[in-house]
Amino acid sequence: MSRYQSLKEECFEANLKLPALDLVIYTFGNVSAVDRSKGVFAIKPSGVDYATLRPDDIVIVDFDAELVEGSMRPSSDTKTHAYLYKRWPEIGGISHTHATYSVAWAQAQMDIPIMGTTHADHLPSDIPCSPPMSDELIKGDYEHMTGQQIIDCLHEKGLKYQEVEMILLGNHGPFTWGKDAAKAVYNSKVLEELARMAFLTLQINPKAPRLKQALIDKHYWRKHGANAYYGQENFEK
Amino acid sequence: MSRYQSLKEECFEANLKLPALDLVIYTFGNVSAVDRSKGVFAIKPSGVDYATLRPDDIVIVDFDAELVEGSMRPSSDTKTHAYLYKRWPEIGGISHTHATYSVAWAQAQMDIPIMGTTHADHLPSDIPCSPPMSDELIKGDYEHMTGQQIIDCLHEKGLKYQEVEMILLGNHGPFTWGKDAAKAVYNSKVLEELARMAFLTLQINPKAPRLKQALIDKHYWRKHGANAYYGQENFEK
Amino acid sequence: MSRYQSLKEECFEANLKLPALDLVIYTFGNVSAVDRSKGVFAIKPSGVDYATLRPDDIVIVDFDAELVEGSMRPSSDTKTHAYLYKRWPEIGGISHTHATYSVAWAQAQMDIPIMGTTHADHLPSDIPCSPPMSDELIKGDYEHMTGQQIIDCLHEKGLKYQEVEMILLGNHGPFTWGKDAAKAVYNSKVLEELARMAFLTLQINPKAPRLKQALIDKHYWRKHGANAYYGQENFEK
Amino acid sequence: MSRYQSLKEECFEANLKLPALDLVIYTFGNVSAVDRSKGVFAIKPSGVDYATLRPDDIVIVDFDAELVEGSMRPSSDTKTHAYLYKRWPEIGGISHTHATYSVAWAQAQMDIPIMGTTHADHLPSDIPCSPPMSDELIKGDYEHMTGQQIIDCLHEKGLKYQEVEMILLGNHGPFTWGKDAAKAVYNSKVLEELARMAFLTLQINPKAPRLKQALIDKHYWRKHGANAYYGQENFEK
Repeated sequence: MSRYQSLKEECFEANLKLPALDLVIYTFGNVSAVDRSKGVFAIKPSGVDYATLRPDDIVIVDFDAELVEGSMRPSSDTKTHAYLYKRWPEIGGISHTHATYSVAWAQAQMDIPIMGTTHADHLPSDIPCSPPMSDELIKGDYEHMTGQQIIDCLHEKGLKYQEVEMILLGNHGPFTWGKDAAKAVYNSKVLEELARMAFLTLQINPKAPRLKQALIDKHYWRKHGANAYYGQENFEK
Repeated sequence: MSRYQSLKEECFEANLKLPALDLVIYTFGNVSAVDRSKGVFAIKPSGVDYATLRPDDIVIVDFDAELVEGSMRPSSDTKTHAYLYKRWPEIGGISHTHATYSVAWAQAQMDIPIMGTTHADHLPSDIPCSPPMSDELIKGDYEHMTGQQIIDCLHEKGLKYQEVEMILLGNHGPFTWGKDAAKAVYNSKVLEELARMAFLTLQINPKAPRLKQALIDKHYWRKHGANAYYGQENFEK
Repeated sequence: MSRYQSLKEECFEANLKLPALDLVIYTFGNVSAVDRSKGVFAIKPSGVDYATLRPDDIVIVDFDAELVEGSMRPSSDTKTHAYLYKRWPEIGGISHTHATYSVAWAQAQMDIPIMGTTHADHLPSDIPCSPPMSDELIKGDYEHMTGQQIIDCLHEKGLKYQEVEMILLGNHGPFTWGKDAAKAVYNSKVLEELARMAFLTLQINPKAPRLKQALIDKHYWRKHGANAYYGQENFEK
Repeated sequence: MSRYQSLKEECFEANLKLPALDLVIYTFGNVSAVDRSKGVFAIKPSGVDYATLRPDDIVIVDFDAELVEGSMRPSSDTKTHAYLYKRWPEIGGISHTHATYSVAWAQAQMDIPIMGTTHADHLPSDIPCSPPMSDELIKGDYEHMTGQQIIDCLHEKGLKYQEVEMILLGNHGPFTWGKDAAKAVYNSKVLEELARMAFLTLQINPKAPRLKQALIDKHYWRKHGANAYYGQENFEK
């Protein structure tokens, strides 16, 4: 048995969530899970249908995207995952989909404005959309530069990857991350729902206002940080 | 066995309806059920996924939101439920969701206009949307004041909670209620469908008229009150 | 066993199709089936959920909407069905739903324009939407007058009920009919799909043209009438 | 057993995918599969519901649409399929649906603009929409001329059928094709998803830009042609 068996299982389970949550059709997505103690991550093989995917198909690569274990070619987006794992020490999983509403906002090249408490429950800012890459970079090491594009976009907008666990790549689609692969997939689903709510809101009222700062703070911090009182952590009767 | 066992079961069953009716993803909602003879209500624990929720996880609290029985922290919205149970003696259940179309109207900060008989079959007015709370109140006892916000909004619009069993909290989402928890959930589903119909209607015809008063009266009163002739109550062959 | 047993079964099966085809939630619809040799029709009881409906719950009434057999109150729309059966000798079933897109067009008070061959495969004209009833008639024998409203609307627009098997009641929703109850339900589903296609078409291109007459004729008549060559009728190798 | 048994099975399986992938209701579509060595293709019989369709119902015809084997009338669109098989030697399957978003763009009489990488992963141009046929041709050999209409539209727009495996027939709906029937159905599903994404994108931002050429080239050619590095073909560790 592989020494990466449990990592492969985690990655496999998280990948299967994508079609179950209606986030992908066919092979339109990939999830990875990291094991920092071993310096590797597990990722979906390229172009394999979720219906036939098995745990042993999962590929193990290092943080330079070099193959460590596996008989299949890893996802074509592997270098993007590697770039982020190398630079963001606090994340444990990454998810990439072509979910419909998320892609629509990415194609519109617009940030998703924060307009409600559902959004503020998850992140305290708009959901950033990166501008398209320059032609020169596209023709170069494209998937590697996609990682840099993500980090640059967050940096320019003054966002922390520990708080804003999602981004839209302009004209492409969403990348999300989190403490593990399951949380990254959770964020993909939440992003898709926020994208749908924001779309509908602006259809109903094109002048719908941004959420006021007091509500952003209230909802974000009641679920995050030391003074959170949502969920079952730190609960004392 | 707990003396609140049947109340917990009622609350549990009603909570499970939320994902079954496509009204929530993950933990985006909560339902409560009251037992007025015992002066308590049962409510979903905070942040627990519907897939793993068990009847024994349901928390019992009193009308001041104080814990009576249970090993888990109750929903972060518990004080809102408590506020309403204390002031509205005729309700038996409350449901709160982040259903997509309902949230979109709440984010648009607009009442849902009454435009058809499906709407009038359930309530004789627009579905009210409360304005956002003041910053001062948000930073204070937020969930408690949310209950007051609901009651104030109905009062200002001249609506009775016995007739209008639903409201949108501006920028947040829907709260619904009814004679028991099942009816509160029913109202959540009906509200979501009315929100979707109204959205589509105004997309098709932005000048679509309000339903004429004669049809509001006809449809509302053929299903409600002493002269109703819908359903099987008071049926004599 | 009732002498209307097979009629009740036909009506029961057709009613169950409504939730299965996503045309209704809860009790938002009713289907009837006629037996002209016995001068009666079978219809859903009022306010009964589809999940608990049994064949024996189906109510038998005559063409004046008088109860013939059954222990439950028939649908509140029974007089509308009776009115149509009495005046349209060639129909065998009627279906009424509150399907979302159909209702949205009804609330918009607009005919659904014929814009594609999917539409022309089923009827050779726009789908008519009746104007709202006068206040006087609403306050009178409302459900009876709803039947007259349907017939008047078709008459005024010069449409034949044998060709146009569907209508939208302004501010209310769709009624459809056909040679039997199953065909009436089929028409409810087709109408909902045509309503959705027309909505999307006009969102994409508000100036989308009406289907040219040559295509209306080609598609309608290749499926209907003596020279039809669609389906398996009159097929000779 | 028929000498066309395996061809019928392939055609049957591909047809069943249409309702499973939510691309058709009732009988709104048909798929065919070719056997070029035998000079025939298999196609769905006309007007038969997918729920009752059996492999033996599949009809075998030649490239002039003449019946070779089968007891049922072939699809009313058979001549269109025959026309394409005769002229396009590299295709193995054809799929025709009335999928909702694809039809909406066809009814809008607009090409679907290429606005994202999901689109460029599959084809390097807009998805063409043919103009309506002349009245004269409609009244003539309509289904035969529909084949010519498809080939003319691709020719006029300078597109290759080996690269652009999908088209919208103005006011009608989509035809897609591919190396076999399964790939043709895959293309029907992808087209429907691209149609939905493009619709949403333009609703969010009516001025959303076309995808830049460098990204079209990058995404199309990383999945197609000799230098592709997507999927498992030509993978060497």
